[in-house]
Amino acid sequence: MNSTRDIDALIEMMAKLPGLGPRSARRAVLHMIRKRELLLSPLADLMGQVAVTARECHTCGNIGTTETCDICLSEKRANGMICVVEDVADLWAMERAGVFRGRYHVLGGTLSALDQVGPEQLRIPRLVDRIEAENITEVILALAATVEGQTTAHYIADQLEDRVTLTSLAQGVPIGGELDYLDDGTITAALNARKAL
Amino acid sequence: MNSTRDIDALIEMMAKLPGLGPRSARRAVLHMIRKRELLLSPLADLMGQVAVTARECHTCGNIGTTETCDICLSEKRANGMICVVEDVADLWAMERAGVFRGRYHVLGGTLSALDQVGPEQLRIPRLVDRIEAENITEVILALAATVEGQTTAHYIADQLEDRVTLTSLAQGVPIGGELDYLDDGTITAALNARKAL
Repeated sequence: MNSTRDIDALIEMMAKLPGLGPRSARRAVLHMIRKRELLLSPLADLMGQVAVTARECHTCGNIGTTETCDICLSEKRANGMICVVEDVADLWAMERAGVFRGRYHVLGGTLSALDQVGPEQLRIPRLVDRIEAENITEVILALAATVEGQTTAHYIADQLEDRVTLTSLAQGVPIGGELDYLDDGTITAALNARKAL
Repeated sequence: MNSTRDIDALIEMMAKLPGLGPRSARRAVLHMIRKRELLLSPLADLMGQVAVTARECHTCGNIGTTETCDICLSEKRANGMICVVEDVADLWAMERAGVFRGRYHVLGGTLSALDQVGPEQLRIPRLVDRIEAENITEVILALAATVEGQTTAHYIADQLEDRVTLTSLAQGVPIGGELDYLDDGTITAALNARKAL
């Protein structure tokens, strides 16, 4: 249809977003058209703006609109500690928990021989540089408990051995988690790491 | 955070779309930022364009970018038949099925005393006008099988009685539907409308 060409194109593109399919994209687009002033126009403006200004922090790889992100610039953050995460989404998740007061380093993926991702493709050399430059004493490896995540953690541990204290996030039963719904691996890890009351 | 103000605002606004929450909005925004050239910029442009050009068809209420929509303009469509739907999404669903060759009329809602939606708030007077102007002989009421939908259908039927043939979509077991998963109302309707083989 000619009269809906732009709208069809918009639906098709929205359907490419993670979490949306053709049906939910149609619903979202109709909703936006109905709330044109409140939603569609401001969203278009914001997206245009972010498309121009979004960039990776030169130091840690966080996404923001400045050359160095607020976390790297903040004087309130503890020096000497770096939490290594795979992805910006993981950094944001850590920040929402609001408990870590050091700085971050976003790898931008995990090592993968299959996908030809080596240390150079990730931000690992930059991490090694930061250890010296920022007098880092502890590196927390907050990587996923998957084969790729753990391979990457081991590689980084090899690189940094003897230069810093290396730690990783504890594994176990999630808060609010019911044993019945947990996989065997998590239960095994939680049992092996059991603590005296 | 200052350096992520625009990005935070974008996430907050995306989270208002139906089908997206804060978590999926964050994922979608990170995905868009990573695919800036392919997704974020074109989406911003398309949204801006649609925000300016999207409008309701003067005749039937379909959403498009022209004063009269392609369906109303098409000479290939059967004259004399109008399918009445609640919402543009319903019109699009009918069109995807590709089986109805007449024209449509979008009410833009259902009658609701609670929400103070009367016939004037819907596109009902316009429907009555079209019956005469377009020599309509059959009106198919494709409204939801809810209380509001059926109230609206009855009201329209009262208005158009004796002037056109009134029909409604058949109710019964959906294609591919298993009896075990159907509600009692649907099974009752399907049994009452049973057909000789």
